Amino acid sequence: MTPTITAFERSPDGGRGLARDMRVRWALEEVGQPYDVRLLSFGAMKEQAHRARNPFGQIPTWEEGDLVLFESGAIVLHIAKRHAGLLPAEAKARARAVAWSFAAISTVEPPIVERETAIYLERDRPWHAERLPMLEGRIHVRLSELSARLGAAHWLDGAFSAGDLLMVAVLIRLKDGGMLEAHPGLAAYVARGEARPAYRRAFEAQRAVFADRSNNLKSR
Amino acid sequence: MTPTITAFERSPDGGRGLARDMRVRWALEEVGQPYDVRLLSFGAMKEQAHRARNPFGQIPTWEEGDLVLFESGAIVLHIAKRHAGLLPAEAKARARAVAWSFAAISTVEPPIVERETAIYLERDRPWHAERLPMLEGRIHVRLSELSARLGAAHWLDGAFSAGDLLMVAVLIRLKDGGMLEAHPGLAAYVARGEARPAYRRAFEAQRAVFADRSNNLKSR
Repeated sequence: MTPTITAFERSPDGGRGLARDMRVRWALEEVGQPYDVRLLSFGAMKEQAHRARNPFGQIPTWEEGDLVLFESGAIVLHIAKRHAGLLPAEAKARARAVAWSFAAISTVEPPIVERETAIYLERDRPWHAERLPMLEGRIHVRLSELSARLGAAHWLDGAFSAGDLLMVAVLIRLKDGGMLEAHPGLAAYVARGEARPAYRRAFEAQRAVFADRSNNLKSR
Repeated sequence: MTPTITAFERSPDGGRGLARDMRVRWALEEVGQPYDVRLLSFGAMKEQAHRARNPFGQIPTWEEGDLVLFESGAIVLHIAKRHAGLLPAEAKARARAVAWSFAAISTVEPPIVERETAIYLERDRPWHAERLPMLEGRIHVRLSELSARLGAAHWLDGAFSAGDLLMVAVLIRLKDGGMLEAHPGLAAYVARGEARPAYRRAFEAQRAVFADRSNNLKSR
């Protein structure tokens, strides 16, 4: 049965691959599974039909028969458990890949999102100029720690895993802010992720949504 | 083999059960597994020996033979996968419990931690009084959404699971701020979690570390 995921009808990032459906698309491409996409407006995301999928009214979600899931991390691990290619077979290595998945989403991503939120919601506040470097300092601490652990390795723990997929997807959020460049090892790590054929396919698929819409708007 | 977890030598919360080792202790008590505890000073957490366990220098970690894990969410799921009591046996319900685990840690907890960070690090800044209600407003949005989904149910999705354990552990951080009281359904949910015998045992175990230390300090 082909699963259906949800994604933004109008991507806030203009198809730059930063929305969280990208993680699920990438995982599905890594394991070679087809999927359908249900596009949602910002209004529809907050309506009851979507809150039945995700009580917090966010994308992505996962529908496959009567199974409904939310949280991109959980969906990526669900895909990884059922198809080879994203989790090691050996139990201990598998547990470590899950740990890296949580590290991406609960330790590395929050300060990055906090900075984005400040830029979106507080950029006109009088304190923004003073707070922004504080927020960026917290991100750099995490990046330095991650970079020290990665060292010269290609991936975080042996072969590419769901943990790398989620970590790269989180770090990509920093690409345009110039913060990643201060950590060349991580910049190279992100570039390795982006160079994977599965990433490219997923990126083009999410970008096509936005390109189609641009064309639609132009043709009106 | 008895696992060893790490915890704060001096709990910043004075043994009120807010540190993240509490989640792992609680999970181990739910499944009836013994464990050892390695206490770390704030300095030791940032040293190389601990960064080998967790590159971000945080507690808790998990050591069991040659398996080393970090991230409380990953450790709780690791325990849940190997012992009955924290994940449903049926595959779809199991995937949903993992989704709730991620929701607790990646959707509900970040705004709560952001408020705590502001109170710790920015309380003397001129903008704090104006920002705090903004941060609390974001938390209330999440709590309202969670409360609407929980409704009159005892737990988030059928029987008590790792998802409930992590969600209750996250919500407990709000207990002293008066924010939970605005959501009576969630306050009752947290109370149900705290009333579980496994929670009580875990709570007393983490509190004993602090009580011992208080006694040690007094006896000097």
